[in-house]
Amino acid sequence: MRIITVNREFGSGGRELGKRLADALDIAYYDREIITILAERSSLDKGYIERIIEHGSLRGYPITCGQTLSNRSISLGDGPSLLAQQHKVIREIAAKEDCLIVGRGADYVLQEYRPFKLFVYADMAAKINRCRTKGSAGENLTDSELKREMRQIDKARANSHDFMAPCAWNDKHGYHLCINTTGLEIKNIVPHIAAYAEDWFKK
Amino acid sequence: MRIITVNREFGSGGRELGKRLADALDIAYYDREIITILAERSSLDKGYIERIIEHGSLRGYPITCGQTLSNRSISLGDGPSLLAQQHKVIREIAAKEDCLIVGRGADYVLQEYRPFKLFVYADMAAKINRCRTKGSAGENLTDSELKREMRQIDKARANSHDFMAPCAWNDKHGYHLCINTTGLEIKNIVPHIAAYAEDWFKK
Repeated sequence: MRIITVNREFGSGGRELGKRLADALDIAYYDREIITILAERSSLDKGYIERIIEHGSLRGYPITCGQTLSNRSISLGDGPSLLAQQHKVIREIAAKEDCLIVGRGADYVLQEYRPFKLFVYADMAAKINRCRTKGSAGENLTDSELKREMRQIDKARANSHDFMAPCAWNDKHGYHLCINTTGLEIKNIVPHIAAYAEDWFKK
Repeated sequence: MRIITVNREFGSGGRELGKRLADALDIAYYDREIITILAERSSLDKGYIERIIEHGSLRGYPITCGQTLSNRSISLGDGPSLLAQQHKVIREIAAKEDCLIVGRGADYVLQEYRPFKLFVYADMAAKINRCRTKGSAGENLTDSELKREMRQIDKARANSHDFMAPCAWNDKHGYHLCINTTGLEIKNIVPHIAAYAEDWFKK
């Protein structure tokens, strides 16, 4: 049984690292795939689910393009139920196959599986640079606006995590390895992390 | 130029990891060796220097076995001077050879050398177990006394570090890789960290 969880600061490359690590270890990779499963089961819009689960609010959600919103009223009351369903989906995935899950509370939801828990982070300048060059995030924002936005996203991740987890999102003691990607090509470090993980699972 | 610094929680195995990593990379290893150099230069007792530098006090120093104390009065005024001398010694070492230095503020003293900075930590239970099985620390202490002692040592390390460093001792952002040794055989993970470090230096 090989379960890996990846928590990450926004812009640190945690998702790329997770994807490459799952490929290197030949295990399934889950991130937004979980939202897709939730959307199928609940008949709710993916963007709506993502906003409710990740940010606890509908801030920034483009109301006009929510496909299912015409059929039901927007309700923050969906939050606890969606979160519980997300945890159920995560447990089903882990019971089914070896996998790597990015975010979504998998680190504490899957505690009984003894997952190998990673945290990925970087300096603010490196994260901004990564957003500018690799992602489409914050195209229309100044650096300081982008910085504020990134801090808000991380704060929302921390709040949502710490509401249920025994160890704070930001506390390295909740993880087995914390990786600072500043200045690194993620593809270069993944083989070493994969080898480390393989040994970790043997213990 | 390959300079590695290792900061660590007491009992986490940071020293063993540092020693093995230096061996794996075939670079010089410095820990208490720095105290030996300071003792030679200052004609002060090693235990006295260690207490002053690491704990900022003479708490627990066995007064009766201080060899040089008969020649001079005990003075906490030695602190700043010894600290400055320690930093000088660390800079001389880094200028001379590739090396790995455990603790002693090397992570911020050698900032201009762009060191690869590691932090080693573990769960409290694992650290107590390590102290009981591998070290002679706390032989006569109960678990809760040992725990208190370990927390005090880490607090002293943090205070001494944070007095001069730009990033807190406990903050993962001050490090490139943070390694949780809980449940691991350090000799098994060192080859992966060595490979990671080699790639890190190439960037």
